[in-house]
Amino acid sequence: MKSTMMDVPLSLNHLLERAGKLFAGNEIVSRLPDKTLRRHSFGEYYRRTRALASALQRLGLKKGDRVATLCWNHHAHLECYFGIPAAGGVMHTLNLRLSPDDIGWIAGNAQDRFLVVDDVLLPLYRQFAQMHRFEKVIVFPFSGAAVPPEFADYEALLEAADPDGFEYAAHDEDDPVAMCYTSGTTGRAKGVAYSHRSTILHTLVASLGDFWGLRGTDVVLPVTPMFHANSWGMPYGAVMMGVKLVFPGPHLHPEDLLDLMQLEPPTLSLGVPTIWMSLIQAYDAAQAADSPHHGRWKLPQGMRSLVGGAAVPEALIRAFDRHGIWILQGWGMTETSPVCTISYPRAELRAATADERYRRAAMAGVPVPLVDLRVRGDDGRDQAWDGKSVGEIQVCGPFITASYHEVPVEADKFTPDGWLRTGDVASVDALGFVKITDRTKDLIKSGGEWISSVDLENAIMAHPAVAEAAVIAIPDEKWSERPLACVVLRPGRTEAADGLDAHLLAHGFAKWQLPERYEFIDAVPRTSTGKFWKMKLRERFPR
Amino acid sequence: MKSTMMDVPLSLNHLLERAGKLFAGNEIVSRLPDKTLRRHSFGEYYRRTRALASALQRLGLKKGDRVATLCWNHHAHLECYFGIPAAGGVMHTLNLRLSPDDIGWIAGNAQDRFLVVDDVLLPLYRQFAQMHRFEKVIVFPFSGAAVPPEFADYEALLEAADPDGFEYAAHDEDDPVAMCYTSGTTGRAKGVAYSHRSTILHTLVASLGDFWGLRGTDVVLPVTPMFHANSWGMPYGAVMMGVKLVFPGPHLHPEDLLDLMQLEPPTLSLGVPTIWMSLIQAYDAAQAADSPHHGRWKLPQGMRSLVGGAAVPEALIRAFDRHGIWILQGWGMTETSPVCTISYPRAELRAATADERYRRAAMAGVPVPLVDLRVRGDDGRDQAWDGKSVGEIQVCGPFITASYHEVPVEADKFTPDGWLRTGDVASVDALGFVKITDRTKDLIKSGGEWISSVDLENAIMAHPAVAEAAVIAIPDEKWSERPLACVVLRPGRTEAADGLDAHLLAHGFAKWQLPERYEFIDAVPRTSTGKFWKMKLRERFPR
Repeated sequence: MKSTMMDVPLSLNHLLERAGKLFAGNEIVSRLPDKTLRRHSFGEYYRRTRALASALQRLGLKKGDRVATLCWNHHAHLECYFGIPAAGGVMHTLNLRLSPDDIGWIAGNAQDRFLVVDDVLLPLYRQFAQMHRFEKVIVFPFSGAAVPPEFADYEALLEAADPDGFEYAAHDEDDPVAMCYTSGTTGRAKGVAYSHRSTILHTLVASLGDFWGLRGTDVVLPVTPMFHANSWGMPYGAVMMGVKLVFPGPHLHPEDLLDLMQLEPPTLSLGVPTIWMSLIQAYDAAQAADSPHHGRWKLPQGMRSLVGGAAVPEALIRAFDRHGIWILQGWGMTETSPVCTISYPRAELRAATADERYRRAAMAGVPVPLVDLRVRGDDGRDQAWDGKSVGEIQVCGPFITASYHEVPVEADKFTPDGWLRTGDVASVDALGFVKITDRTKDLIKSGGEWISSVDLENAIMAHPAVAEAAVIAIPDEKWSERPLACVVLRPGRTEAADGLDAHLLAHGFAKWQLPERYEFIDAVPRTSTGKFWKMKLRERFPR
Repeated sequence: MKSTMMDVPLSLNHLLERAGKLFAGNEIVSRLPDKTLRRHSFGEYYRRTRALASALQRLGLKKGDRVATLCWNHHAHLECYFGIPAAGGVMHTLNLRLSPDDIGWIAGNAQDRFLVVDDVLLPLYRQFAQMHRFEKVIVFPFSGAAVPPEFADYEALLEAADPDGFEYAAHDEDDPVAMCYTSGTTGRAKGVAYSHRSTILHTLVASLGDFWGLRGTDVVLPVTPMFHANSWGMPYGAVMMGVKLVFPGPHLHPEDLLDLMQLEPPTLSLGVPTIWMSLIQAYDAAQAADSPHHGRWKLPQGMRSLVGGAAVPEALIRAFDRHGIWILQGWGMTETSPVCTISYPRAELRAATADERYRRAAMAGVPVPLVDLRVRGDDGRDQAWDGKSVGEIQVCGPFITASYHEVPVEADKFTPDGWLRTGDVASVDALGFVKITDRTKDLIKSGGEWISSVDLENAIMAHPAVAEAAVIAIPDEKWSERPLACVVLRPGRTEAADGLDAHLLAHGFAKWQLPERYEFIDAVPRTSTGKFWKMKLRERFPR
């Protein structure tokens, strides 16, 4: 027998129409380059997005054509998220933190046909303009200045378009809507193309109560750039549920974010650990009676904070909890849409001690629905979920990539049965909490035993004198590899290596697991996405 | 270009595996016929469900075969929800409130091969056993008594099965998993067959924060029978999010439910308005100092209550709110999986008066994601969402039926462009709130103007002397139709028709909208699903 259900394809266009009908009065706030706030309604957003789609079709956009964006987080970028797919195109977010050479190479690899660029980013565009010729460069006058005559003006295009007469491009649910390039620390970036289907499924799953817990009464502050795995997919969820959005624009410094939180208090924010570490330091410093910022800020009570993109130190979770803000840690990658796991307060932990709850919150979390996750050991077998056995995390599901754009499927990226090899090493405990111990290439093998660089880093960073720490492997004749700790001290603090050793021993590390030595450095080099860039440290400290 | 995403079919089996891995320690509580509670864990549930699937395969179940259930709400019924599809079968819930003749006819129409039946329901089974021969009747020993030897014993089958060796039946996401028959008040019941895809999508959508808002810390009490549109799909959501489930078994009387709420306080309950009306009456009566139940119950503070299946009177919403319980009204049908709209507290209503919030809560609510909804006027055009213009609700989406099992597609059920004609008449306001004014066949056309029987009923039921009211049309020579109000008074109350007229006029009704006359009756006849059965009233009061 057959199901009697309708054959209706999943579609982003449905979410846009829904928002236009149900949420017309809700607000979208964007911070402009001059730090003033621009407000418009979902009703205006709906019309502007359809106008953009109409304008793109008039410019000759064809089904599947890529339209790149080089933009900060703001309302026009959100218009691109839905307007480009509505016209049948594929939105390709360019990462403005990459080198101009990399951006140009990526635009060429994706064969981007049009570009939407913030006027304030035109200097960056000009640095790679020679590497890839866009057929049309559309400039969003973010600063309010006139658009140089050699470019198309985003606002003028919308003005001349026909939002009422616009008709959505026909599509299947497997057709692509967006494209992101991986920001791997080694090798060339590779493109991942999301579909209507994968995006809708990811949005539904991530929005669920225990994860983002999105509700129409939420006020969401996406600090995560819209060019990093689509701001983790939050813009799609926001439009689906009709939440109020507050976009920070280019102003991501702690003081700017704290100011914005005073003006438009969020109920939910998202960003990488680095952002929140700087923010809580600035906030705590402002509590001192002699601070010039004393009394300037109050953190929004009860705000949920989604943190991901890199491991979240337990110290950060405790620091925010002291101010009534609970951090929900997530783990995923560009390849996974990105949400794979989220650490949320489980019913089983209701009676747990505070320490136990912090310990779980500092893990990557449990797999979300529709994601299958397994941990493969060196022997090619699935590890038990015992909280001890480690292996590579492999994932499978309808919003996980099966390949890269125009790249042959590589055996080191996918298993023979089609699962994604994430390159992250982890254990999983009996409650399903994933604990990432390392990137496969960051594990340290000392005397036949593995040492986790991440465990060492977290423990060193819990020392009061330490601001940051990154641990790498150095070659060793006797033990094959040994850990080297690169440590950034807090301003005005000094610390000797034996103080850190004592600290680690007190934290339960064995003597053989202690770093071979400590290097005190000014800053840990970071990738464009804010992750520790250990390759650079390995170059600096080859032994 | 193509999306790079994995082609992974949506599957109930994924949810079962997920629950077995992540939620093994969580509890499922069932109330047995003797009112004691049976507890088992999701870990046991997982193994028992796989054992059931293994047993069904050993009995020769083939892909697509129907397995009927005739069961109350309990853990074994939940095992059927996932175990039957896991084996490749289609779970067909038989409605035990129908007449034996109807049940037998439906089992025959669905060609059910096996039956799982509660031992306490064997007397009912025997009344229709001659109408349809099941190849195998599996008796669940719900009461704990020995299973009569002519039947298969559910527990013995599970005992002998092989949950570890069991392998899921291969399937596409469009393959059917469950079947429900409509409980129309006219005509033959018709079968709707849900698929893996429609069930997963409906579960994800309905579980979202503004709707069910399911979280792992929830304790859910499904009073809605698991044979009514699959208990509105809640069992699937509960397994997906790992909530604690409390099943009431056969004990649905107000006092039984209040007792159960003391033992296992729910955070979320679901049921039809009739249940909650009786419950709040029993609860309020128990507050009297001389009540034999004085001090026996305390309603769970902060509980959310999902109410649907029939219009929820505003008086009921106010009554529960007085006790700190907010009612979320939903609207849908067997044909729609069933959730189509839910009335939730919108951000736009934050500053609204209490009266305004009650008014919205008494509406059917706003469409959920993936459901397209339109209101078609008599002229075949879509009505404006102005809160005034009425027409028939038509819906379209991936969890809405496109046809009925082995019935030719009828023009009065589906539009030429494939939308479902719900037969409900409604207006939609600017915020997207649907207000159902009538079933198409319950509208009263008086002097060329429509009168809503539902509006009249709700207003009459707000009168303190009235327990229930149902309004039907009677023929009228001059006006073509006029409303007749059938009224059930509260015990010990009397009321004259002119008192009700004055009450309606005070509620804003025009003189011509007042009922032609009032009939005071003992009870409103109800269908098997608890809805007003107006056909019976029309037979009784033809003029």
